[in-house]
Amino acid sequence: MTDPVFKRLAILGIGLIGSSIARAAAETGAAETIALWDRDADVRAEATELGLGQVAASGQEAVRGADCVILCVPVGALGEVTGAVASALAPGAILTDVGSVKTAAAAAMAAAAPDGVFVIPGHPIAGTEASGPAAGFATLFTGAWHILTPPPDSADTAGSAEALAALSGFWTRLGARVETMDAERHDRVLAITSHLPHLIAFNIVATAYDMERVDEQDVVKYSAGGFRDFTRIAASDPTMWRDVFLANKDAVLETLGRFSEDLAALQRAIRWGDGDALFQEFTRARRIRKAIIDAGMDSAEVNFGRDKPPPT
Amino acid sequence: MTDPVFKRLAILGIGLIGSSIARAAAETGAAETIALWDRDADVRAEATELGLGQVAASGQEAVRGADCVILCVPVGALGEVTGAVASALAPGAILTDVGSVKTAAAAAMAAAAPDGVFVIPGHPIAGTEASGPAAGFATLFTGAWHILTPPPDSADTAGSAEALAALSGFWTRLGARVETMDAERHDRVLAITSHLPHLIAFNIVATAYDMERVDEQDVVKYSAGGFRDFTRIAASDPTMWRDVFLANKDAVLETLGRFSEDLAALQRAIRWGDGDALFQEFTRARRIRKAIIDAGMDSAEVNFGRDKPPPT
Repeated sequence: MTDPVFKRLAILGIGLIGSSIARAAAETGAAETIALWDRDADVRAEATELGLGQVAASGQEAVRGADCVILCVPVGALGEVTGAVASALAPGAILTDVGSVKTAAAAAMAAAAPDGVFVIPGHPIAGTEASGPAAGFATLFTGAWHILTPPPDSADTAGSAEALAALSGFWTRLGARVETMDAERHDRVLAITSHLPHLIAFNIVATAYDMERVDEQDVVKYSAGGFRDFTRIAASDPTMWRDVFLANKDAVLETLGRFSEDLAALQRAIRWGDGDALFQEFTRARRIRKAIIDAGMDSAEVNFGRDKPPPT
Repeated sequence: MTDPVFKRLAILGIGLIGSSIARAAAETGAAETIALWDRDADVRAEATELGLGQVAASGQEAVRGADCVILCVPVGALGEVTGAVASALAPGAILTDVGSVKTAAAAAMAAAAPDGVFVIPGHPIAGTEASGPAAGFATLFTGAWHILTPPPDSADTAGSAEALAALSGFWTRLGARVETMDAERHDRVLAITSHLPHLIAFNIVATAYDMERVDEQDVVKYSAGGFRDFTRIAASDPTMWRDVFLANKDAVLETLGRFSEDLAALQRAIRWGDGDALFQEFTRARRIRKAIIDAGMDSAEVNFGRDKPPPT
């Protein structure tokens, strides 16, 4: 096994992502020691049982002496958590996160972190609809993109290039493909590839709930027609997603405005029986699906391969 | 092997669904002879090569002497296809379809079918995003619901109960779970479980296309955040879906209106930073996902099981 990237890795927040990092870092030897902490005592107990690493009694204890600290908490909690451990952060330590909104994450961490700590926000484009420490697994990041958004003003700071290289090496060791970009671009891209799809999924499930002329039983029973895919996405962690929409408000509202305009045009085409307009819109979609499969970003199997008959 | 349900089964339209019925009927022995026809000569040649059954030179030839005829064409073509073969339909034959809108399907077939033919519209809640005869497979209907919507005025006709029992037995033999309901209820339920999800998916892909400040490369690359799920649904056959929205206009517009209202409320909550409202909406969704999995309507595996690392 090659040398560990970090001597002491501290993970604050032991949910799906935090516990997956702990598992992957242990399995790949990317960190010599893994210290963990969660504000929820039950989660800490579960993490201890799962053997995810050294579960600390406090955030401060976890980060003390760590050369890398990864905050795996909702975006809205990043500032508070950073502030709570700031005095225990070692000079020269890397402070990163896994939040889905990078401008807000960068601002929150930078404001609360002490001088001499390298703040490098990050976002793994990986996850599942499940939550909690037991939901994590070591291969979650295999082949997934990991986006780092180093602050533009950090480039001149002594040691910042080395810190970025180390963090990039850590995620590569975990199996991820690392990209760097500026935080604003990240937030614009993710607004359409992730935030809007989740908002739409949450919304359609709510709409289905409230259809008083359609039985909920029928919705469940006949969900294979398409609806079930939306419910998977909409089963994601509510706290995390609340914070995403609050933190990426501008990009989400801009994207949502375009979506609603486009939807109004489709609605009009349906009302006026404009079949040609519908056909043209529907035809465009196949090309982008093909591009996603060609790029290895999704299973090429139809129905994601899930409808195979049970093995006999 | 038990007796065949039908002596001669005719399938008009040899796409994903038509070819899957042919395969399943052959494999389960549900039909003694399987006659097929498609208006596209290339598709007929492909069906011959695939060995799906006796490929006829015309629709009339295919249906002649058939005790069951299944129209597997877009809803908008049902009237025309029925009219074209009407004079060759045997008295006492069952005429059914697989269209996603049952009031329109029933009206179109009933208007064009001769007296003495039992028109029993049907809809398998099964499919994939792929199209064409090669995309079909024999187990497509295994465990899936199949909805039959026998016309209410048919109940008194001599032989109609037997016809319904035979068609129901055929789909059961193919592995489906058969339900009967009235066409209006079907169309209301499917508007929310299938038609609206598809419209939304088509629309979000179009919106992503037109984001001039976001690179299409980035959309593809970071699609694992949620967007890729929508592109799968949006890769479905454009002609079929155009017809669905035209044929189920009222139920779709009603459902879409509610969706847009609900979305406007979420939009307002984002704009005004109302985190509690967002959290409450997002929390409701988990329950319906659980109900869908408990009902066996989707894979319980996270990410539909598709993100498992490649076997080593």
